[in-house]
Amino acid sequence: MRRWNGWGDESTSMELPHSAGQFLQTLIGKGDCLADASLQQVMDKVPASRLVEHKLISLDKEQRVRHARGQSLPDWLAMRSGDIQAFPDGVCFPKNRQEVKDILAYAREHDVELIPYGGGTSVAGHINPKVSQRPVLTVDMGHMNQLLDLDTDSNIATFGAGTPGPMVEAQLRAKGYTLGHFPQSFELSTIGGWVASRSSGQQSLRYGRIEQMFAGGSLETFEGSMDVPTFPASSAGPDLRELLLGSEGRFGILTEIKVRVSKLPECEEFSVFFFPDWQQAAGFCKQVVQNRIPLSMLRVSNGVETQTQLKLAGHENGIKWLERYLALRGCKDGKCMLTLGITGSKLQLASARKQLKKQLSKFSGVSTGKLLGKKWQQNRFRFPYLRDALWQQGYVVDTLETATDWGNVDALMIRMETALSQALADEDENIHVFTHLSHVYGQGCSLYTTYLYRNGRDYQQTLERWQKLKHSASDVIVKNGGTISHQHGVGKDHAPYLAQEKGELGMNVLASLCEHFDPRKQLNPGTLLDD
Amino acid sequence: MRRWNGWGDESTSMELPHSAGQFLQTLIGKGDCLADASLQQVMDKVPASRLVEHKLISLDKEQRVRHARGQSLPDWLAMRSGDIQAFPDGVCFPKNRQEVKDILAYAREHDVELIPYGGGTSVAGHINPKVSQRPVLTVDMGHMNQLLDLDTDSNIATFGAGTPGPMVEAQLRAKGYTLGHFPQSFELSTIGGWVASRSSGQQSLRYGRIEQMFAGGSLETFEGSMDVPTFPASSAGPDLRELLLGSEGRFGILTEIKVRVSKLPECEEFSVFFFPDWQQAAGFCKQVVQNRIPLSMLRVSNGVETQTQLKLAGHENGIKWLERYLALRGCKDGKCMLTLGITGSKLQLASARKQLKKQLSKFSGVSTGKLLGKKWQQNRFRFPYLRDALWQQGYVVDTLETATDWGNVDALMIRMETALSQALADEDENIHVFTHLSHVYGQGCSLYTTYLYRNGRDYQQTLERWQKLKHSASDVIVKNGGTISHQHGVGKDHAPYLAQEKGELGMNVLASLCEHFDPRKQLNPGTLLDD
Repeated sequence: MRRWNGWGDESTSMELPHSAGQFLQTLIGKGDCLADASLQQVMDKVPASRLVEHKLISLDKEQRVRHARGQSLPDWLAMRSGDIQAFPDGVCFPKNRQEVKDILAYAREHDVELIPYGGGTSVAGHINPKVSQRPVLTVDMGHMNQLLDLDTDSNIATFGAGTPGPMVEAQLRAKGYTLGHFPQSFELSTIGGWVASRSSGQQSLRYGRIEQMFAGGSLETFEGSMDVPTFPASSAGPDLRELLLGSEGRFGILTEIKVRVSKLPECEEFSVFFFPDWQQAAGFCKQVVQNRIPLSMLRVSNGVETQTQLKLAGHENGIKWLERYLALRGCKDGKCMLTLGITGSKLQLASARKQLKKQLSKFSGVSTGKLLGKKWQQNRFRFPYLRDALWQQGYVVDTLETATDWGNVDALMIRMETALSQALADEDENIHVFTHLSHVYGQGCSLYTTYLYRNGRDYQQTLERWQKLKHSASDVIVKNGGTISHQHGVGKDHAPYLAQEKGELGMNVLASLCEHFDPRKQLNPGTLLDD
Repeated sequence: MRRWNGWGDESTSMELPHSAGQFLQTLIGKGDCLADASLQQVMDKVPASRLVEHKLISLDKEQRVRHARGQSLPDWLAMRSGDIQAFPDGVCFPKNRQEVKDILAYAREHDVELIPYGGGTSVAGHINPKVSQRPVLTVDMGHMNQLLDLDTDSNIATFGAGTPGPMVEAQLRAKGYTLGHFPQSFELSTIGGWVASRSSGQQSLRYGRIEQMFAGGSLETFEGSMDVPTFPASSAGPDLRELLLGSEGRFGILTEIKVRVSKLPECEEFSVFFFPDWQQAAGFCKQVVQNRIPLSMLRVSNGVETQTQLKLAGHENGIKWLERYLALRGCKDGKCMLTLGITGSKLQLASARKQLKKQLSKFSGVSTGKLLGKKWQQNRFRFPYLRDALWQQGYVVDTLETATDWGNVDALMIRMETALSQALADEDENIHVFTHLSHVYGQGCSLYTTYLYRNGRDYQQTLERWQKLKHSASDVIVKNGGTISHQHGVGKDHAPYLAQEKGELGMNVLASLCEHFDPRKQLNPGTLLDD
């Protein structure tokens, strides 16, 4: 069963290797574990529902608890402490478009706020109810999870918006196809959520972001249905698809999603390389993407992330030998690990390898073969389970991400890491910070920064520490040429920073669009725009 | 000097080969030439300007004539007949952002309609003034034509919005870069126009459409400046770039355009292949693109276009030998010509050729080497000059285009061609119709249809014939799964068909955006939305 207060299924968890625990203790000190609330304790706090009864709506308290929060760090702390502030007044699980329409009509009639809910994996507060005078209904799309159509001529698949990653891929693979969208949240997040929040997956270099996959679909709004037709491309005015992408539930409820799919590739391989330093590793990525060498993934850990990953791997002896070998090849302190994916036909893999060769030698890259690549592939969706393992030892882990142009990558990374490192200096707390570069584009790349800190003496202090950290980095990002999010979306946590990049006129346009679709602000208020 | 009443520079023209003239006469009968009006005759009809004088505004009659129309067929007939209906009341040529702001302030103060003008190459009526109670001012961006910045780290170039194609490429090539955007109108159209109308170029398969190139930029509006920053990608809500793309001057005036550029490729080649029939040729394209074989261009002429192209080539003897050779290789009546571009490093070209080989043999493709490809390359921007050559012989040529999913390509092509062929049946006029497929995507492709008909007895009848033809095909497109435009935009000619694909709610969104930026409908009214 899915955890009510953490990531993933209860049957899956991750251990923190002893060496990693020691490593952290040296860096940021020993952590103290905080006590968790139980599900029953939280359910006892759920107030009576303010909703008028409706056959599609469940008022069950456990459901209301399970839909109250996503997976951000504040969400985690709220669930662990049991101090959840606001619950939805009910949850419904529509099975088809008509039921979504019925819910919209009900919401209009009874002045109810609606929160469209996919996999509940938001790390930016998208699906959290605000404290409101009006009742709040969460619309869980999880029952609309089927492949409805597959056009094998045009390679377009139609899915119910609530289809989670594994069901997207399983239903396509049964017919020889793949979508190729693998965000870190893949195991739980849904195709509708990907569209609503402009998600990006690990193999975006081949398959594109969800923007490139989303071909059209259906949105139910207070004004009726909006069906966006599929065209391979069009110059017929602004693209309505692009309005739905990133709309975060403010315009209506996505019910059906049409995506561009691909035949399953003949081959796929992931391999790991090391570079002497960040400059070489990042320079390699830039060259590869600007020269259009056809890979499916590139990610580079900076020196500290590389060191941390090697500690986390757990195999102390094997790692020692690896590091000796790498040192002989010029990769010593500050070395950076690169994970690289190639996907396609045999001919394409052979050609990509050939094209890579020259760049690898130019940037002093050292191959370690495919073993570490296979390891990465096996564990590609495991990272979120680590939060629990760290939590048990009194540590908090969170991540931040942005994207910026190549000319700004190094400067922004240093500024983000510095801001995080110093954010708790007034409390004499050290922060362990590291970054990887991924999702490379001709113009730039994303930066994904992880930071670890010690729990405070209680939940309140732990949250305040997070607020300082999050704000210091977010502020640096938007003031220094980064976007407030490359792949997590805006939600409520990033809304205060959005104006910096959209500008006053841009914010006015977004507000005017929300107003157009939802003049009474019943659709996911407070998300995307801080209203 | 640029022609005031036709395409391109007066020093360039195209001859219709004798054999092509005879071919046409057999198909649709002998044409009768209509008399042209002179520039002076048209200037004499220009009414007094209604504009309040301003130092940036020219009231010169020749300028007002030269900015009255674009390059659509109705524009052509209006210019040739001298019956132009509406002229702008003046033309201004801002040199910088401040002057654009001054013009906007002036327009607001004096209730003036503004028409942003790039290269004047619209074939859908984008820049034509409507008959209006208010004075109309055309804002010609042609003096803002410089490369303002080139970031060679992030591969982003900043241009004045009025920079025409050849100046874009020349300024980039001087520094070793290319944008790679080559629409048919390349010689005259501008980078701002490309963005405003969502243009696509011949090598979109490598470089993408203008949507993929446009990284950000500046728009001046009645409410102030909107500066869209450059990010390689972002999930921070709906993408403002996508609102500007295809906005067709309704939201404001684009002043600076930032685009993603590429280093000049090591190699580039174009070659021509023939296939026994349309099914094989189109099937080949679909396989190539769905298998991600890295080409820069693919275009396939259907049987009639292939036959017409061979007639237009003029070299009767050479063509006879070519056809004998092709017949021996299985390409006889109904054969289809494919032009294919490969661009990149030597390794990439070699790999692409290798990957093509298997598909070519699977679909019975026959290579003709690189001579015809070179010819195509030399003449890639010549086609628009053909209208004048045909006009001199009493024929009218126009083109239509759309895009649709692969599963619908054949059916839509047949329907479009049938509708055009029969559109003048009531007048017993034959139409010569042919189509090529180009701009291929995993999901589908564009269809570009050319039709030739005989002049009517006068301009009025010639225009009425066009209206019947244009309407019959446009109606078929939007009712049968095509977009009203893949690359020409909406303008005024396509505005009546837009609702069919955007839907009622989609149209309401667009209207609400126009209203937001321009509540008094002063910016290019009647374009995009039929208001």
